[in-house]
Amino acid sequence: MARKIFYFDYAATTPVDPRVFRIMQPYFAKDFGNPSNLYELGRHAKQAIENALQKITGALNCRLDEFIFTGSATEADNLAILGVARANRKFGNKIIVSAVEHKGILSACEALRKEGFEIVELPVGEDGLTNPQQLKKLLDKRTILVSITCADSETGTIQPINAISKLIAEFRKQKIENRSNKNSTFYFLDSRFPFFHTDASQAVLYCDIDVQKLGVDLMTLSSHKIYGPKGIGGLYVQQGIDIQPIIYGGGQQSRLRSGTENVPGIIGFAEALVLAQKHKKTEASRVKKLRDKLEKGIMKTIPKVVLNGHPTKRLPNFLNISILDIEGEALLLYLDERGIAVGTGSACNSESLEPSYVLTALGRPYEYIHGSLRFTLGKYTKISDINYVLKVLPEIVIKLRKISPLNLRLDKKEKISLPKAFVGGQTPHFLRKRHAK
Amino acid sequence: MARKIFYFDYAATTPVDPRVFRIMQPYFAKDFGNPSNLYELGRHAKQAIENALQKITGALNCRLDEFIFTGSATEADNLAILGVARANRKFGNKIIVSAVEHKGILSACEALRKEGFEIVELPVGEDGLTNPQQLKKLLDKRTILVSITCADSETGTIQPINAISKLIAEFRKQKIENRSNKNSTFYFLDSRFPFFHTDASQAVLYCDIDVQKLGVDLMTLSSHKIYGPKGIGGLYVQQGIDIQPIIYGGGQQSRLRSGTENVPGIIGFAEALVLAQKHKKTEASRVKKLRDKLEKGIMKTIPKVVLNGHPTKRLPNFLNISILDIEGEALLLYLDERGIAVGTGSACNSESLEPSYVLTALGRPYEYIHGSLRFTLGKYTKISDINYVLKVLPEIVIKLRKISPLNLRLDKKEKISLPKAFVGGQTPHFLRKRHAK
Repeated sequence: MARKIFYFDYAATTPVDPRVFRIMQPYFAKDFGNPSNLYELGRHAKQAIENALQKITGALNCRLDEFIFTGSATEADNLAILGVARANRKFGNKIIVSAVEHKGILSACEALRKEGFEIVELPVGEDGLTNPQQLKKLLDKRTILVSITCADSETGTIQPINAISKLIAEFRKQKIENRSNKNSTFYFLDSRFPFFHTDASQAVLYCDIDVQKLGVDLMTLSSHKIYGPKGIGGLYVQQGIDIQPIIYGGGQQSRLRSGTENVPGIIGFAEALVLAQKHKKTEASRVKKLRDKLEKGIMKTIPKVVLNGHPTKRLPNFLNISILDIEGEALLLYLDERGIAVGTGSACNSESLEPSYVLTALGRPYEYIHGSLRFTLGKYTKISDINYVLKVLPEIVIKLRKISPLNLRLDKKEKISLPKAFVGGQTPHFLRKRHAK
Repeated sequence: MARKIFYFDYAATTPVDPRVFRIMQPYFAKDFGNPSNLYELGRHAKQAIENALQKITGALNCRLDEFIFTGSATEADNLAILGVARANRKFGNKIIVSAVEHKGILSACEALRKEGFEIVELPVGEDGLTNPQQLKKLLDKRTILVSITCADSETGTIQPINAISKLIAEFRKQKIENRSNKNSTFYFLDSRFPFFHTDASQAVLYCDIDVQKLGVDLMTLSSHKIYGPKGIGGLYVQQGIDIQPIIYGGGQQSRLRSGTENVPGIIGFAEALVLAQKHKKTEASRVKKLRDKLEKGIMKTIPKVVLNGHPTKRLPNFLNISILDIEGEALLLYLDERGIAVGTGSACNSESLEPSYVLTALGRPYEYIHGSLRFTLGKYTKISDINYVLKVLPEIVIKLRKISPLNLRLDKKEKISLPKAFVGGQTPHFLRKRHAK
């Protein structure tokens, strides 16, 4: 591709950082040993994996044996959900997940439903946030697992993970205090439930991922969302948690994920995480400035634009908007013609034409979702890229609106015509009404 | 590593071919798009995957939608076994696998046993071969799946896949002829069982992998055993076969294996397969000559050596021997000191000290298995490497036998002292007796 690409889809995938690639490279053809083997080449590979593990568990603040490498974050999500559920069935069959979880989690839950589990969906508000008090009401004796993402992959809204983990810890404490037979092993084991899993795939670059501080029991990480290679991911599993493998075989990865380890992938993933940790603070504030400029610029120049997700509790690189009266796919293709790459709906299932389930969960009407665009910034985003979008996007919107058959009439037209109203937490009246209970 | 490595463990893993690496490289940092996305970068990635799929399905002689990329051959094995069993439970619960299958298959079967499936193990003879007539006796109405490897990963013994697939086809034909209600959908569907899966991970480089000619319904491939990258594998699944995913999510890979595709991995894997096909015949005869030289040389210079696996029906790059009175691990480490990398037991579980289950299945006594070494040659093996082993190995054997407490006395000592007797199909008498029925 000779022409310049203005890439605004870092939440879908990221290019491998050259430093990451450099550290991986020798492990393809030169230091190519199988880490299961005892001779020098094998030991080299094994040592390389252990170094990678040290880097990752250092960043997570956990033990070396508490992290499992998988073939993707989706696999890690599946291992967490299917693995915990199937291994701990005797303690209960209820699983609570937020409505804005990654497809890997929601689809695994669908599979569990067929296996006799009860899946309860924790709704989110129109700002994309879950409500810990609502979760509290759903927790009961049968609940063995709660999964709530750090930040969803469509709006980037940051969930109150600390508040939720405290609430769950409190629930467990109550279990111990209330139990009748204090010496029974079953009750002792049972008091550890529910376990708390979070998918941190999108959050890693900008949020704290210390599992002790977060108070989570399981956590999913992705490599290709943090400038590492595709084909590798991982799961933090707190020591002592029973988990059933989804892939059986030679017994690699503490018997939890068999198959010859993807050595270069693991090495690249770990290095990407080290770099992410190192530049977290400066990058977060840098992309936030750019994102804010983009957001304000769009809101100022394009009428009838709605912000999706929380106005402030949001990853600093996310901007998800609905541009009314326009079909998102058409917008995406017009932008593509001008070299701008953006997401529409979730990147993981944009092949389908179904309206985004995340935006649906936020209570957005179908017409809004249809015109949604997700801009996600990353470490190569420059101010000139933002300026380019702010020049090109309004032109395209005007052109598309001219030929659009739609002209959405809203309950309170005067509110939507001032798009600024949507920035900074003021939800338009017509949306508030729609979801009031 | 500055010193020269004499690598004889190509069955454990192979270095990535430079041509493979070159074709993968642009997809890490430059053409890094997510194939699920509709803009140019995404389309590029998608197109690259389709090109890869074309290469692979061309080699297999199957349709584009009959191949699923997975994170490893182990995952492909699991998808075949768990996926077919769980999706087709209503047609039967019996699964037949050979005793020398890959751990990925045997362990998945163990998991299925807990789910109520009956797993029947087809034994192998002392030459490592399964007997199709014995399989025929095991086939019944309840059998939904048969899995027999093309060539096992310890001895490289080549199974009679064609004879087995013909036998299974005949069994299915009989089912149709014998069925009472010729118009029932159930009987129509039922007559497709059992499906026949084969793991071709080790065989790909040297055997025919045309699925039509082989007559198989499912086939596992590995990338890192054929000079492609680690972290990628795949499964051929014949059109119309119901299979339940083991990883759920965004619905990639025809909904059978969710998760963002490992684009560089897929591209490298496909290119490796193209190269394998291209050089198959010449490479097979080249390594066979080298392997035969190694085998004859060892048999001539070292007493009390037993060949494991079939003398002739064996992958041309495999030489598995038991050097009696010596502990294999010690041998391996001494060889390692001299720069020679060989396998002992299965590469996928050499961390464990359990005796190899494959050699056990061949009826080898424990003491034999303990002293087993697996030499597997590959495309970088040269005649000088063979000469080096033939110089070094006998010296080490003499040294180790001097300090060995063992001096195995055999039933017919005169037979074992002439190790040539074991080459060319003459099984020593004491072994024949042990397994006579």
